[in-house]
Amino acid sequence: MIIAVDGMGGDLAPSAVVEGTVEAVREKAVNVIITGREGQIKEELSKYDYPKDRISILDAPEIITTEESPVMAVRKKKNSSLVKALTLVRENKADAVVSAGSTGAFMAGATLIVGRIKGVDRVALAPVIPGKNGNFMIIDAGANVDCKPQYLLQFSLMGKIYLENVLKKKNPSIGLVNIGVEEEKGNELTKSAYKLLKNVDFNFVGNVEPRDIPAGDVDILVCDGMIGNTVLKMYEGVALNLFEMLKEEIMKSFRTKLGGIILKSAFREIKNKMDYSEYGGSAFLGARGICVKAHGSSNGKAFKNAVKRAVDCYDNKIIDKIRSEIEKIPQMESDSIKK
Amino acid sequence: MIIAVDGMGGDLAPSAVVEGTVEAVREKAVNVIITGREGQIKEELSKYDYPKDRISILDAPEIITTEESPVMAVRKKKNSSLVKALTLVRENKADAVVSAGSTGAFMAGATLIVGRIKGVDRVALAPVIPGKNGNFMIIDAGANVDCKPQYLLQFSLMGKIYLENVLKKKNPSIGLVNIGVEEEKGNELTKSAYKLLKNVDFNFVGNVEPRDIPAGDVDILVCDGMIGNTVLKMYEGVALNLFEMLKEEIMKSFRTKLGGIILKSAFREIKNKMDYSEYGGSAFLGARGICVKAHGSSNGKAFKNAVKRAVDCYDNKIIDKIRSEIEKIPQMESDSIKK
Repeated sequence: MIIAVDGMGGDLAPSAVVEGTVEAVREKAVNVIITGREGQIKEELSKYDYPKDRISILDAPEIITTEESPVMAVRKKKNSSLVKALTLVRENKADAVVSAGSTGAFMAGATLIVGRIKGVDRVALAPVIPGKNGNFMIIDAGANVDCKPQYLLQFSLMGKIYLENVLKKKNPSIGLVNIGVEEEKGNELTKSAYKLLKNVDFNFVGNVEPRDIPAGDVDILVCDGMIGNTVLKMYEGVALNLFEMLKEEIMKSFRTKLGGIILKSAFREIKNKMDYSEYGGSAFLGARGICVKAHGSSNGKAFKNAVKRAVDCYDNKIIDKIRSEIEKIPQMESDSIKK
Repeated sequence: MIIAVDGMGGDLAPSAVVEGTVEAVREKAVNVIITGREGQIKEELSKYDYPKDRISILDAPEIITTEESPVMAVRKKKNSSLVKALTLVRENKADAVVSAGSTGAFMAGATLIVGRIKGVDRVALAPVIPGKNGNFMIIDAGANVDCKPQYLLQFSLMGKIYLENVLKKKNPSIGLVNIGVEEEKGNELTKSAYKLLKNVDFNFVGNVEPRDIPAGDVDILVCDGMIGNTVLKMYEGVALNLFEMLKEEIMKSFRTKLGGIILKSAFREIKNKMDYSEYGGSAFLGARGICVKAHGSSNGKAFKNAVKRAVDCYDNKIIDKIRSEIEKIPQMESDSIKK
């Protein structure tokens, strides 16, 4: 297997990217092509001892930042590390692409450069988040802001295939994120999506209210990108906020400081449990090639896990499975040709 | 001032409702008409010593449950405590209505029975939530699932008037809930709403990512009801989830249990700070009368605060102010006539 790695993407690139890539190559029998500024990548690589024949560099002087307009950046910066990496997959010179760079640009590139699997209307971002009782996937988590019911049905299928094959979760439960549990609740999108979901043979558990999401009792949470991104960012924001409030309370007196010291490990335990940055990255599902987005703040370990996740997707033939399953679900007014 | 109180709404009705109403009447110079099952209300009232001439009962044998379809329930159950209370406002026999019952039914009744202020396209649910650095309002929090940009502009204005006049917050900051801070981020609704908001003389701070909401640095968060409800319920859900995880960690050993005991008050402090059930209820803004929704689980104190909030709205002429201000903002394709 050949993996294209965006050497310049992410807050800690290229150092963390190279470190993670080297570690992944040591653990998995894969070859990697790192795209990016050759001099910098070479310098980083020189710090490690690794099988030289399995990591090569493809020079890409340009860098796409998170501030740029994703679509414009992908279209114009042909010599950027991200576009070069995506192009390797498009030209079948690589089986997967891993990047910790701009989510928007990666998303745009997954569709515009790698392309969508026939029958898939939209490529979706599908992070897997650690909940209290188990991990849960949010699909779509921000890539598709305006969705049709059909997209949500496809998201469900792709999420199902990913959880079953890559994360080895048998017959995962699928819930529709909504403002009430009753079928008639929600907006036009959720009401129509509900009808589609209850008529396919998925393990559809109906509507799930956001209040119940953090428990992690439902494996796949389907929604449009606006809702999914709101769920994801509230999950991070509220937790962060609570820990800050807790810290303030603890610093108020000697007594509470003592309590804080005693519970330090407990707090860390929870923080680690909720932190998904090292969980192996988020897959873009629906693209013709394996696309794994590593967290923007990925350190070496986190990036290594993202690369290994790409390997899992490859070993479990995730693309072929989506391609063969997507045709089996009811196709409504699919606009995959137009787009 | 005369307040119509839905005597049968809420998990603890009628006892908590009557208790809160009596306490409110003792503190504020208002008259109250409690709608509901006369026998039960009388029995509850008999437990208290209060100015008899200021609390009367309007018999209403029917009860609207949270399980019923809101619109159908409001249309059919003419003799329900909620409909009777709303009708008192419609017929100008009361200045405000307070209920801890079904949010959906109250919402539907606020529009169908009380009616909207001329120029207001949608009545919005506007809870005020305690954040880390300050309270923040979410408008709309679930009443309007499908919105037009114009609605969001009106929500902003109504929220602004409420915060300035009732909560005495000068020139409150207004943020548009979105998946990114850049103007071009989001779906069709947020992109158009952004253009409207930046062209009025509000203290518009641009897009606010859900991650930053819990801090409470932005006073008014504008969004459609799907996003608003997701923000609200994730806020509750993640906090609840974290406290449960914390409890589990604390129960693991004698040492951690000790730490838990020491920090018990700190935890309670944070829980109380985040609990908005006693914050005086949530206003439905845009209706022709004052409508205050008390939390469904309201105890006597919480319901009393909701009644007092209604008094604040009345004393500060909130309805008149919305009526006079709504006409001043740019009216796009308003559909207030059609609806």
